[in-house]
Amino acid sequence: MNDCRGTLFAIPNMSRRLSASSDYAQLLDKYDTWMFDCDGVLWQGDQLVDGAVEVLRLLRERITFFREEGSVRNQQCHQVSESYKTKFDHLGVEAHVDEIYGSAYATAVYISSVLKLPKEKKVYVIGMTGLEEELRDEGVAYIGGTDPVDKTLESFSLEHFELDPNVAAVVCGLDTTVNYTKLSKAFQYLTRNPGCQFIVTNEDSTYPSGHGLLPGAGAISAPLRYALGKDPISIGKPAKTMLDCIQAKVHYDPARTIMVGDRLNTDILFGQAGGVSTLLVLTGITSERDITGPNASVIVPDFVTTSIGDFRSIK
Amino acid sequence: MNDCRGTLFAIPNMSRRLSASSDYAQLLDKYDTWMFDCDGVLWQGDQLVDGAVEVLRLLRERITFFREEGSVRNQQCHQVSESYKTKFDHLGVEAHVDEIYGSAYATAVYISSVLKLPKEKKVYVIGMTGLEEELRDEGVAYIGGTDPVDKTLESFSLEHFELDPNVAAVVCGLDTTVNYTKLSKAFQYLTRNPGCQFIVTNEDSTYPSGHGLLPGAGAISAPLRYALGKDPISIGKPAKTMLDCIQAKVHYDPARTIMVGDRLNTDILFGQAGGVSTLLVLTGITSERDITGPNASVIVPDFVTTSIGDFRSIK
Repeated sequence: MNDCRGTLFAIPNMSRRLSASSDYAQLLDKYDTWMFDCDGVLWQGDQLVDGAVEVLRLLRERITFFREEGSVRNQQCHQVSESYKTKFDHLGVEAHVDEIYGSAYATAVYISSVLKLPKEKKVYVIGMTGLEEELRDEGVAYIGGTDPVDKTLESFSLEHFELDPNVAAVVCGLDTTVNYTKLSKAFQYLTRNPGCQFIVTNEDSTYPSGHGLLPGAGAISAPLRYALGKDPISIGKPAKTMLDCIQAKVHYDPARTIMVGDRLNTDILFGQAGGVSTLLVLTGITSERDITGPNASVIVPDFVTTSIGDFRSIK
Repeated sequence: MNDCRGTLFAIPNMSRRLSASSDYAQLLDKYDTWMFDCDGVLWQGDQLVDGAVEVLRLLRERITFFREEGSVRNQQCHQVSESYKTKFDHLGVEAHVDEIYGSAYATAVYISSVLKLPKEKKVYVIGMTGLEEELRDEGVAYIGGTDPVDKTLESFSLEHFELDPNVAAVVCGLDTTVNYTKLSKAFQYLTRNPGCQFIVTNEDSTYPSGHGLLPGAGAISAPLRYALGKDPISIGKPAKTMLDCIQAKVHYDPARTIMVGDRLNTDILFGQAGGVSTLLVLTGITSERDITGPNASVIVPDFVTTSIGDFRSIK
């Protein structure tokens, strides 16, 4: 416990700006479960955020609740979106597989644990290998995805399309090979199979590639959302579903948990919906002018700092 | 003029249902400029609506204002969306090229007449041959479209992308070869070229193919709309832009003009926005339960009939 902590709490509707070394030290005292968005926080595309690796190492050393093994492992959760262990390894970011929570993983868990599809039922996937892997790991049968049959820019005709009556859900994530055939098939299932569920891994409008922003998973599912005229069940941020998945697995204490992210309308909203504290960094989507001045967002994080690298000052 | 005409007017917020032979005859007396949506009115995909050809012939015979040549030609306007003369010919529907107003045509006119891009400026196209032809005819320079370079499902990287600073607008229509490369390039122009306009030919959520509904032009532009977080300039129905284009060309009298369509939120709204009368047919998107009962739409056409074929009763 820390005497100064009272001053560190955010005033309602106003973020506390972190700057002094003691500010960062106090956050480490207060929170022992740290959840990170990755793109825009730890890295930008293929570029590490300056100091990110060092700070993660510092956090691992300082947070006494953290254990590498045993029942309380995973108190430090990394939460990713369509990114995988290889990305961490590639960038030299230390992370254990069971510390990584992706919206693809949460989606698979949602389908297997909440939807509980009967054995003969399956899902139609608009998405990439990562999503397929998670579905397979959770025992969810699927079609579509990276199936070469659907990887085509040839014109799609319903005349030769056979509706599979066992498709009980359409799951849509980021898919950089999305095309009219996939969208049309998904649309058929959603409109013609009674009760077919429309599920999206997350609603990110964009994602930061190493060389700039590109359309995100939310943009990939937008045609279906528009054609159907209805919103999907969204698993990832800002929906609470993924946090429920993490809670079920690691049993964190919301009062001692903080979510670190770069986006107000996904990461910060996600943390707030889950009743945990929130820290905004400015190395990703959100810029200074989004949080200050007359046009500032109504979504107010508890804390703001320029970069996760700022935590190096606690050394 | 017809003595019964008074009884034919729709009561505000209630459509007049046409059924007797005299109902149809009265409509012909009252309106001499007829605008038709095609998909869902004259045909459904590749299937003609029963009696459509016959009725168009009847209308051509009876409407005295109509001339095949001279200054008042084209009083009878057919207005299509991404369909072309060949479709009319293929189905045996008599129509002259200058009677066909497509949203692609109106889009090209909008760019050449309203935007008036400087000579060196061009547009980036997400769309098919029809849109390219209209742009070419209006002297609008473009890139993208059916260019084989963009017809790819390979992963797109910004690293090798060269932003063309002369792209001053992105134009998006129905494109069944839409892919991540096209969406990503369009997104770059819209976010990185200052003042770059976002224009869509129309906002149809779906279109009726011969074998069922498929995602429409509005669904193709939905990823950009979502990623940008802003609405495009929409040219086709329900926007008034296309009607302004037609008005500029044929100088119709709104009081003697009727729009026939199958969709409330595009065709009927389009007619109402343009101050012309509206007739809903039930051979397309809108069904009986959309216009009656407690969940009826707030968009109320002046007249309703089951099918354009009903006009055969005036023979």
